Amino acid sequence: MHKYELDTPVAIVDLDILENNIKDMADFTKNIGVHLRPHIKTHKVPEITIKQLVAGANGITCAKLSEAELMLNTTNVDDIFIANMIVGDEKINRLLKLSEKCKISVAVDSVEVAQPISDLADKRGMKIPVIIKIDVGLQRTGVLYGKPTVDLAEKLVKMKGIELIGVYTHEGHVYSGETFEDVRRIGLESAQMMIQTAEMLRDAGIRTDIISVGATPSAKITCTINGINETRPGTYVFNDYYQIKLGVVEEKDCALTILATVISVPADDRAVVDAGTKSFTSDKAQAFGIYGWIKGMPDIQLIRAYEEHGVLKFDPSMIKLKVGDKLEIIPNHVCPAVNLFDELFVVRNEKVETMWKVSARGKLR
Amino acid sequence: MHKYELDTPVAIVDLDILENNIKDMADFTKNIGVHLRPHIKTHKVPEITIKQLVAGANGITCAKLSEAELMLNTTNVDDIFIANMIVGDEKINRLLKLSEKCKISVAVDSVEVAQPISDLADKRGMKIPVIIKIDVGLQRTGVLYGKPTVDLAEKLVKMKGIELIGVYTHEGHVYSGETFEDVRRIGLESAQMMIQTAEMLRDAGIRTDIISVGATPSAKITCTINGINETRPGTYVFNDYYQIKLGVVEEKDCALTILATVISVPADDRAVVDAGTKSFTSDKAQAFGIYGWIKGMPDIQLIRAYEEHGVLKFDPSMIKLKVGDKLEIIPNHVCPAVNLFDELFVVRNEKVETMWKVSARGKLR
Repeated sequence: MHKYELDTPVAIVDLDILENNIKDMADFTKNIGVHLRPHIKTHKVPEITIKQLVAGANGITCAKLSEAELMLNTTNVDDIFIANMIVGDEKINRLLKLSEKCKISVAVDSVEVAQPISDLADKRGMKIPVIIKIDVGLQRTGVLYGKPTVDLAEKLVKMKGIELIGVYTHEGHVYSGETFEDVRRIGLESAQMMIQTAEMLRDAGIRTDIISVGATPSAKITCTINGINETRPGTYVFNDYYQIKLGVVEEKDCALTILATVISVPADDRAVVDAGTKSFTSDKAQAFGIYGWIKGMPDIQLIRAYEEHGVLKFDPSMIKLKVGDKLEIIPNHVCPAVNLFDELFVVRNEKVETMWKVSARGKLR
Repeated sequence: MHKYELDTPVAIVDLDILENNIKDMADFTKNIGVHLRPHIKTHKVPEITIKQLVAGANGITCAKLSEAELMLNTTNVDDIFIANMIVGDEKINRLLKLSEKCKISVAVDSVEVAQPISDLADKRGMKIPVIIKIDVGLQRTGVLYGKPTVDLAEKLVKMKGIELIGVYTHEGHVYSGETFEDVRRIGLESAQMMIQTAEMLRDAGIRTDIISVGATPSAKITCTINGINETRPGTYVFNDYYQIKLGVVEEKDCALTILATVISVPADDRAVVDAGTKSFTSDKAQAFGIYGWIKGMPDIQLIRAYEEHGVLKFDPSMIKLKVGDKLEIIPNHVCPAVNLFDELFVVRNEKVETMWKVSARGKLR
């Protein structure tokens, strides 16, 4: 079956591009001797996790406990890092249960987050490995780099039910850059802050095995800095229009597209497709001025979107579209777009080979 | 169980508010003698459809065939309008199959959309009721009001497999208004265009039973115009921050909130919750400057959001938050937010009464 025979809207994955993206990152990290721990929140698909592990990933990163539970049950992964704060007894008890089945480490950025984990773990005679989340500029979660991190670490090492094994950051403020030069600069600054903080921790006699960074745009920059020993990119498996805008990849490197059908051509310069924000989200639409990029059709702009409708604008002297035409949309931000689909259709050489369930879709807790 | 005992992030529905919203719209339309055909794309929940039908809805509106299929199989609905263009033989065949089970009407806005439906229906000796989608200003799908509609209608009535039964519009450009006065003005203009077009159709001897409008902000305005005989609001069951911004409702009328937990307080003026754009979407964030409204806490602003994180900003002299605190987020746009959840937890007087599956979540085709 040719991919254009699929009923729309549908998310399709080009297997050659996907496998190339996975191999490229695995080879790169292997060559520079840095552990690769991909973030699976981008794809939420066990089959893709397995491909990443086979290619050489040293474990995976999850955003949510429920993602970790699912990946543990569906893949042979034996080392999971939950890059998020686990708050509340219900979640901590699930974490302890999981940690009996494989190596699970978890983020902490305060005594308030760490203490209940330590208390519940200690009560069961367990020690949960924790990694300090450091804020190097994104200003989201995380303790500030430098002395505040050391101050926190000194409190954490006294807690009986946790074991501090390292530090990590998400240098997500690389996305605030406009060019690849911005990405490089912010990435390098972030890595330096991590290294300096790790040195301060070691000077204070605190164990720091893992010094981890993670963001797709800067993945090949931050982990080249001597001392960084782990990277956690997510988006690289698929890539998206955001990565194109930042100069990280080209259109040909985008593995996931949303196939849509023209359902109305109400004006010479306007057509409407059957995919909208319930397919590709409204992420970054305001910033980019478009809701997604039409693959291979740079003269068509996806200028407006509603839940089930995408509005295409074009110069009628250059472009003609008719009801029934199909086209592929590269999402601005692929991670929340994938999370809207129950399944991905997997294509090689434009032919549908199989279908993967987005098994961790909607795993929010 | 108190609602705050639910693990987060979770979507909760206040049953009293929901039932009041449903009753209020049903009573209003009954009193003015206008049919109510609510759009179920907002909630995607059979239990809510049933409440709407019991309250007096005369049928339902769906955006997608798969929504219609699900609602037909799970409720006693016997009259469904699919307010969207059905394109492609696969979908048309599904439409014909559905129309054997209950009354299904469908939108058309061009010969190109109508002809294949007519051809396939005629081949089976069927006649599918169609309603012309008219564009009165949203500039999405739809044939232009006035003469272009009459021209199209004259072609449609000659097709053997369809039966033209009326006209409809989605006056969605009321959302471009800034105040309720804007909503009123755009709503009234839209209704007038529909009435004028219907008169032209009748003058041309073309049957026009249904003259339908539909958008929550203008629902109580457009259908007061003499001649409009159907309204199709969707959002009114839950309402959202968009409706508050437009002056349509107040905070107390918003039935759906997303309960979230503070997982990090990294600075005096900033806290982070465990809900992000994978819970409340990024819809309208740029326009409103916030990603959602914190219920009962007007001094806290949800200023940034990532997939799994919402960043709250506040004046530390007024607000103190700590890890573990729970708060409720009213989404900017409730329809795509609901579509991210597998289930809604149903609450009365703050106690959890039951759980509803969002059964039509992800029904995109």
